[in-house]
Amino acid sequence: MRSLKLTLAYEGTRFVGWQRQADGTSIQGLLEAILGDIDGAPVAVAGAGRTDAGVHALGQVASCTLASALDADTLRKALNARLPADVRVLAVDDVPQAFHARFSAKGKRYRYVLANGPMVSPFAARFTWQVPGRLDVTAMQQAAAHLVGTHDFSAFQSTGTDVVHAVRTVTLAEIADLTDEPPTPLPAQAVPGGRLLAFEVAANGFLRHMVRALAGTLVEVGLRRRDPDLRALFESANRALAGPTAPAHGLWLVEVNY
Amino acid sequence: MRSLKLTLAYEGTRFVGWQRQADGTSIQGLLEAILGDIDGAPVAVAGAGRTDAGVHALGQVASCTLASALDADTLRKALNARLPADVRVLAVDDVPQAFHARFSAKGKRYRYVLANGPMVSPFAARFTWQVPGRLDVTAMQQAAAHLVGTHDFSAFQSTGTDVVHAVRTVTLAEIADLTDEPPTPLPAQAVPGGRLLAFEVAANGFLRHMVRALAGTLVEVGLRRRDPDLRALFESANRALAGPTAPAHGLWLVEVNY
Repeated sequence: MRSLKLTLAYEGTRFVGWQRQADGTSIQGLLEAILGDIDGAPVAVAGAGRTDAGVHALGQVASCTLASALDADTLRKALNARLPADVRVLAVDDVPQAFHARFSAKGKRYRYVLANGPMVSPFAARFTWQVPGRLDVTAMQQAAAHLVGTHDFSAFQSTGTDVVHAVRTVTLAEIADLTDEPPTPLPAQAVPGGRLLAFEVAANGFLRHMVRALAGTLVEVGLRRRDPDLRALFESANRALAGPTAPAHGLWLVEVNY
Repeated sequence: MRSLKLTLAYEGTRFVGWQRQADGTSIQGLLEAILGDIDGAPVAVAGAGRTDAGVHALGQVASCTLASALDADTLRKALNARLPADVRVLAVDDVPQAFHARFSAKGKRYRYVLANGPMVSPFAARFTWQVPGRLDVTAMQQAAAHLVGTHDFSAFQSTGTDVVHAVRTVTLAEIADLTDEPPTPLPAQAVPGGRLLAFEVAANGFLRHMVRALAGTLVEVGLRRRDPDLRALFESANRALAGPTAPAHGLWLVEVNY
């Protein structure tokens, strides 16, 4: 058996998310079905991050062990030939036996994209959260700066999850104005008469719905409904005190680092 | 009653097409429902072109007569507030009573986009037809040049349609390489390791499936399965002699001229 690392991009709109579920199409389920056919035996695929329904990925990473002796690039082509067009395998690499997409990850980077204007292009709507109101970007930047460092992020994880250890180290948290250079997959003129803003965040790990809760909180700061000093939220460890969970479709998993 | 011209963009993926149908969501049906609510009476909306299911529009034009006295930009905002995010009204203009989106049109421009390479970005797949094989672009250019002028396009219209008069005047027909500057709604790096090609075509009118039949024929020329001299096809007036109808999702209605 060999260990493989798969690097993937997907348009999350029509999936139930990364993770296999009883109903609906998941990226994990698609990969396991195809790799299982190749090996003639069940194959378990682990993902670096369990992206929710509607979340997009530019560089998700998955791992599995496989018996097949096909070379890595042939496997990549075989997967792409059978996957639907909204999921592409960008790379397949042989890796040491101990490699695991989630447990070996040193960190991940996400982008949460805001369409700040009166209208969003019908070709950008799947990838952005429209916030029509005026946003104080300076206040959002100040708030984002408070996220950098090692904190208890309990106030930013979904209730109902039972993660004991909610301390994470955020290495990047900033608000970027992408209006003039919309990154893939956004078209030019994504927000006519408005701005395209992104919350760029990297950490050694993320709690469930953490980026979306952070984005919802930063938007409240931008709308001047909340103070930019978020430190009391860390201390409270109380999800009810932070902002709402921003919609899934504005979130992109950008890359995973090992 | 006043006459209105609506300019629209839409992402055609999930629609049954422009035209209202018994089942499924159409752009015409959405507009008629909202405008009917605004007027409190049925409103008929005419479109310049009946785009098929999956066809995208950057600048579709529609017309209607309306009793409402709301000013044009307020109507635009009211429509966008109620339309789904994959349809946007770009402009609403008051026009002379005689204006009709279809009958007043002097011409239309379409773009058919080919992803010529081994892999298509999952963010470009909705907007392109993937043709992995090597394409002879020079031969395609030669063939496209034969389309310009006034011809009987019977060989390029769907069988089953009973248009008596199939003579149309094509004013632009060329193959463009868009690899380095992918137009909206395509992302950068739409075809990693390949080319993004477009068949750009403008005419005073189009028959049913005409652009898709032309695109299918030009691809056969590009694959060197067909001679670039298309003149015999005009003379034959025989749909069976031309190439296949290319898939709907590679087609964009770019603009309508009046």
